[in-house]
Amino acid sequence: MVKVNPQVRRVMHSPTLRIHEHVGKLRGQGRDVVHFGFGESPFPVPPSVVAELRKHAGDSRYLPSQGLMALRERAASYLKRRFGHDADSARVVVGPGSKELIFDALFALRGDLILPAPSWVSYGPQGQMLGKRVIWTRPDPEGGYRMTAGAFGEACRRSRTTQKVLILNSPCNPTGAVYSAGELKRIARVARRYNVVIVSDEIYAEITFGRARYRSIAAFCPERTLVTNGLSKGFCAGGHRLGILLVPKRMQALTDHLVCIASETFSCVAAPIQQAAVPALSDRKDVRAHVRDTVAIHRMAGHFLWRECERIGLRCPRPEGAFYLFPDFSPFAKALRRRGIRTDEALCEDLLGRAYVALLPGSGFGVPAAHLAARLATVDYDGAAVLKAFRRRRPGTARETHRFVQRHCPNLPEGIRRLERYLSDLA
Amino acid sequence: MVKVNPQVRRVMHSPTLRIHEHVGKLRGQGRDVVHFGFGESPFPVPPSVVAELRKHAGDSRYLPSQGLMALRERAASYLKRRFGHDADSARVVVGPGSKELIFDALFALRGDLILPAPSWVSYGPQGQMLGKRVIWTRPDPEGGYRMTAGAFGEACRRSRTTQKVLILNSPCNPTGAVYSAGELKRIARVARRYNVVIVSDEIYAEITFGRARYRSIAAFCPERTLVTNGLSKGFCAGGHRLGILLVPKRMQALTDHLVCIASETFSCVAAPIQQAAVPALSDRKDVRAHVRDTVAIHRMAGHFLWRECERIGLRCPRPEGAFYLFPDFSPFAKALRRRGIRTDEALCEDLLGRAYVALLPGSGFGVPAAHLAARLATVDYDGAAVLKAFRRRRPGTARETHRFVQRHCPNLPEGIRRLERYLSDLA
Repeated sequence: MVKVNPQVRRVMHSPTLRIHEHVGKLRGQGRDVVHFGFGESPFPVPPSVVAELRKHAGDSRYLPSQGLMALRERAASYLKRRFGHDADSARVVVGPGSKELIFDALFALRGDLILPAPSWVSYGPQGQMLGKRVIWTRPDPEGGYRMTAGAFGEACRRSRTTQKVLILNSPCNPTGAVYSAGELKRIARVARRYNVVIVSDEIYAEITFGRARYRSIAAFCPERTLVTNGLSKGFCAGGHRLGILLVPKRMQALTDHLVCIASETFSCVAAPIQQAAVPALSDRKDVRAHVRDTVAIHRMAGHFLWRECERIGLRCPRPEGAFYLFPDFSPFAKALRRRGIRTDEALCEDLLGRAYVALLPGSGFGVPAAHLAARLATVDYDGAAVLKAFRRRRPGTARETHRFVQRHCPNLPEGIRRLERYLSDLA
Repeated sequence: MVKVNPQVRRVMHSPTLRIHEHVGKLRGQGRDVVHFGFGESPFPVPPSVVAELRKHAGDSRYLPSQGLMALRERAASYLKRRFGHDADSARVVVGPGSKELIFDALFALRGDLILPAPSWVSYGPQGQMLGKRVIWTRPDPEGGYRMTAGAFGEACRRSRTTQKVLILNSPCNPTGAVYSAGELKRIARVARRYNVVIVSDEIYAEITFGRARYRSIAAFCPERTLVTNGLSKGFCAGGHRLGILLVPKRMQALTDHLVCIASETFSCVAAPIQQAAVPALSDRKDVRAHVRDTVAIHRMAGHFLWRECERIGLRCPRPEGAFYLFPDFSPFAKALRRRGIRTDEALCEDLLGRAYVALLPGSGFGVPAAHLAARLATVDYDGAAVLKAFRRRRPGTARETHRFVQRHCPNLPEGIRRLERYLSDLA
């Protein structure tokens, strides 16, 4: 028998991808599933990105491990322009997705890993695979599952390493929460006090619903914050696998270590893919319009589903960004218990089996199973068709918006109807 | 100060990529450098691969972490058809380059890492980064630097882990050696005796110069051999970053762990890149011709340079595949010592500084610096132009071949002239 590294053995196939493949199978069998499980941008890649990829399809040369210089320059000015980061191409690293770059950062950085509960499904396994102790903050359902500075400090005190690492994700997968300047300031203070390096996963930073400008934790403790971002969410190109990472000026030397990891693993991101990313991160009018319109649709879908979740009796924080809701079924805990359902996993299985609605159990995100929380992705519609309809006639009033979603994203109201029926059957 | 993982801190930027960037800089300054340092295929990507990439430039969906099913099927039948492997799509994993897949295999497998000296520059650092003990076999310059079963057994006895991992690379980077059936059989026997899992890096398997069919170690101990391959070398698409890994039937379960690592790091290879790889691994006539012609050119260049190296007095094993030579300058050791040059690094620096010829020091490949060995890559020519010329008029005789290289790959004879002058200046 082959002997497998116990750190690797401990980790299971990412549940996000697993449910996606499962639903794919059910649909392949002709089952009509509402897929609130998998979060990928449903929209087409911006046409100028596609054109650039076509143009460079024959590029067969290896690029520098840190990334194509032209792309790093665009990435640096993008991060500066859009989010006010103190960015410099010399401190930008390009990788095959920001997930890989976060993994590399965790690989390079010593210390325990602190994670807000809930957090995205991959952070925890990444830490485990790398032999890190993973410390979850105490979840706060009453506060919409946002990590408070208090809960963060408490987690820091449980750690025994002098340096610690926190991954902060705003807008947050799975809750849709966007941290405010005040919250970030308080978190930054705790980070400084306990010597925490922050990996700020800003992959959803383009997708926010409020009017206020996006604020990053890097604005409040720039010296200790690595920023990751990429093309997958706001730029609708998840399948292109391109991420960027910014090292803070005060940690400049860390860049070399990250480039070194890159050079011994993926070498460099595929040359045509890097070339294609250049127009995405340039300040092009067509790309800006693409992002703006798709974000408007994410907002409509998110708010529609949030209102509907509230209406049918789920407890659900209002989404402020990304494309997820994090409802919990605790108001139905008693009725579910009568059916033998005590955990979020049992709940999600039952929902998929009876109502053909796919949700992800909150426990995959670090929330105790008894909370009966689940992640609901709001993107089960035909992005290309919806974008076209939106551009033909932009809904203005609340009523038009509601109608637009009902008409063009039929799986969203259908999913709600199924959830509603499921819940009423419980009584 | 940020605290960096000591395993990561220990490893330096891959020297292969570093010298490439350095030479690029020199050339950018107008310096006329003969680049025998960096090994990438100089040829264009096969046109049908480029066409397929163009067709799928807009694919924005995530694919399964294990890889696109159509591609895994093609990969399995390719490995079966071309090399006789016992392949099955269920045991194929697709990654962003075979380097990443080798890293993942080392991550998943317990035990010390045994490396033939010389071995490719990245295996050692990968092992170190992962906290593995790296055990080098005793190098055998007299035997053309091929690993003998005896030296392998000796290395196994130095290991204290019950399971060990060997990376075997045939055709070999840096020596161009191709292991014979007899040699592989003896190595397989040792592997069985000492419980060694073999990662057979077959990235150059398309590029062999003999008439005999390529033999893999997997033919002699299939139960304990993982095979890696990809598009970078034989298919001239290094910049596309696509590798494949085959898990042996007896280790089927290991596939899940590798897919799990994939799913927590790079997620999946970019969708357009995977689609583009499908025609490469299909048994298409145009792709077969592309590979055949480019291999014929590699053979001419390799044999030309080998004969010239011998002529000017270097000791150099005859290349049987890949696109490298591994000459050693030990016949000039005395003269070099008079100039204060005692190590291969000092030698390579001096060569780049005085003669503008870039070579990689053998110590980067695990050979003691005092051997004065260096890797010479044979690909410093304009692949597209050379391929065109070759197709216009294929050289037949030895004399035509010699003339073809002199005319169409002028940097190769120029590099030799510079080396010759350098060596004669020593006397």
